[in-house]
Amino acid sequence: MLPDMDFADRLVRAQREKRSSLVLGIDPQLDRPGAPGVPAGVSLARFCCEIIEACAEFVAAIKPQLAFFEARGLEGMAALVEVIRFARGRGLIVIADAKRGDIGSTSAAYAEAFLGDGDFGCDAVTVNPYLGSDAMAPFVARVRNGRGLFVLVKTSNPSSGEFQDLNATGRPVWEAVAGRVNGWGSDFIGQCGLSSVGAVIGATYPEQAARARTLMPAAIVLAPGFGAQGASASDAVATARADGLGVIVNASRGLMYAFASSPGLAPPAAARQAAEAMREELNRALSSRQNR
Amino acid sequence: MLPDMDFADRLVRAQREKRSSLVLGIDPQLDRPGAPGVPAGVSLARFCCEIIEACAEFVAAIKPQLAFFEARGLEGMAALVEVIRFARGRGLIVIADAKRGDIGSTSAAYAEAFLGDGDFGCDAVTVNPYLGSDAMAPFVARVRNGRGLFVLVKTSNPSSGEFQDLNATGRPVWEAVAGRVNGWGSDFIGQCGLSSVGAVIGATYPEQAARARTLMPAAIVLAPGFGAQGASASDAVATARADGLGVIVNASRGLMYAFASSPGLAPPAAARQAAEAMREELNRALSSRQNR
Repeated sequence: MLPDMDFADRLVRAQREKRSSLVLGIDPQLDRPGAPGVPAGVSLARFCCEIIEACAEFVAAIKPQLAFFEARGLEGMAALVEVIRFARGRGLIVIADAKRGDIGSTSAAYAEAFLGDGDFGCDAVTVNPYLGSDAMAPFVARVRNGRGLFVLVKTSNPSSGEFQDLNATGRPVWEAVAGRVNGWGSDFIGQCGLSSVGAVIGATYPEQAARARTLMPAAIVLAPGFGAQGASASDAVATARADGLGVIVNASRGLMYAFASSPGLAPPAAARQAAEAMREELNRALSSRQNR
Repeated sequence: MLPDMDFADRLVRAQREKRSSLVLGIDPQLDRPGAPGVPAGVSLARFCCEIIEACAEFVAAIKPQLAFFEARGLEGMAALVEVIRFARGRGLIVIADAKRGDIGSTSAAYAEAFLGDGDFGCDAVTVNPYLGSDAMAPFVARVRNGRGLFVLVKTSNPSSGEFQDLNATGRPVWEAVAGRVNGWGSDFIGQCGLSSVGAVIGATYPEQAARARTLMPAAIVLAPGFGAQGASASDAVATARADGLGVIVNASRGLMYAFASSPGLAPPAAARQAAEAMREELNRALSSRQNR
């Protein structure tokens, strides 16, 4: 870790070294009939760490989804700590997908939890803007310490438009959020020209992507929804800048559960194969944009 | 516990038994110079549980704020589990102040975490609506099991209007959220006439309270902001129905840190004294509304 280096610069360096815009989402599903959450005979932490190790060469960052650890109680949280330590020890950038946000002093405690040096400390965290600027400020303050944020702007789910797309005096609510993200990030633009205050824009809404880039020229966009949620590689990189940077694309189930559609391959091997393929697919989509 | 009883009915029963609209917020602050988070010589869990025991007679529910436990890592989460078990074992209703919300399958995992039977399972949870209905659905589904929700509608913090008050085709965004809360809750109205799908309306915005009650006639309103954030008792109960029900009022620092302004009293004794006084103050405010 280089704590004095901007998060945005660290992320871009990882993207260049790995030639990758791919983020490995760590979403260990809960067991349901016919859909095993964690394969039998392996611990939660080991299942996750083996997949991280197998995919490390092909991904710019990993993104543990807090919900799947919290749902498993204290044992799940202990596994999360192992996953974070393993990945950071391995030199990987870790984004806590926590979607937190609360009033000032409480947001400060969440910022300490996910951007501090404690058990759950990561390189970046996803945050929910519904409570406005003073809820975001304690997270933004941590950006000075080489940490990053991804603010929910336009999410990938079917009902994301219900409130995000409401027309607020001539523009959708998400555009108002995007404008504020641009402001919060303007003090934290790294040598790469991108800000350590980024945004979540679902890959499932490519039509909003160009507009999002205009509203937030320096934001790194974290794009969920590639693969399992139906977005194509070309949709997923729709917010990329002309140089191919400025977007990272998450894939969770398509990597962690690649073994389900790869008979004969163990989970890590299946994930590795899928990660390499997805990296190439995203790189091709970026090249074809640049050649347009 | 009566698992087959509606959450709303259980809460109203507790309010009647205790003659109280007060909720004890468990917000163990982080240590800062001059403002101790947890008094020296006592564990986090013990500090919280002693205050819960001391206030139990005067409060309708307790509301642990997840951030302050997460900020303390695994040790904090273990303390949270102790707090939840102690309070539920003591027959108290426990509301997890988690403000979660994510896309479908992830929200389902959060709902399992906070409304399931695991380590962090509580009676109700606060949720953030920014992602829309499909993010709320897994939580709403748990309401059938005697659990409750409080959806953020109009929050108590100074910048809450930044997005919540944006004018969306003739009405503020928070009113659109309130309308949906009313819809989500309409299938879950208990014998008390109130729904187990409630709403968070900051006590600091009493002018919006009457409008909120019109938009959500059956919602139980959780009102934060009383005391430390500046709202009066009369502001705090502004959403109450004519019978005095339909609102619960949170106080956190004013109870847990009452000892700081009560020389000679230990934290539990100071909290107990403050809880009784707050209960009476809220009851007086409710009476003077009914007599208007």
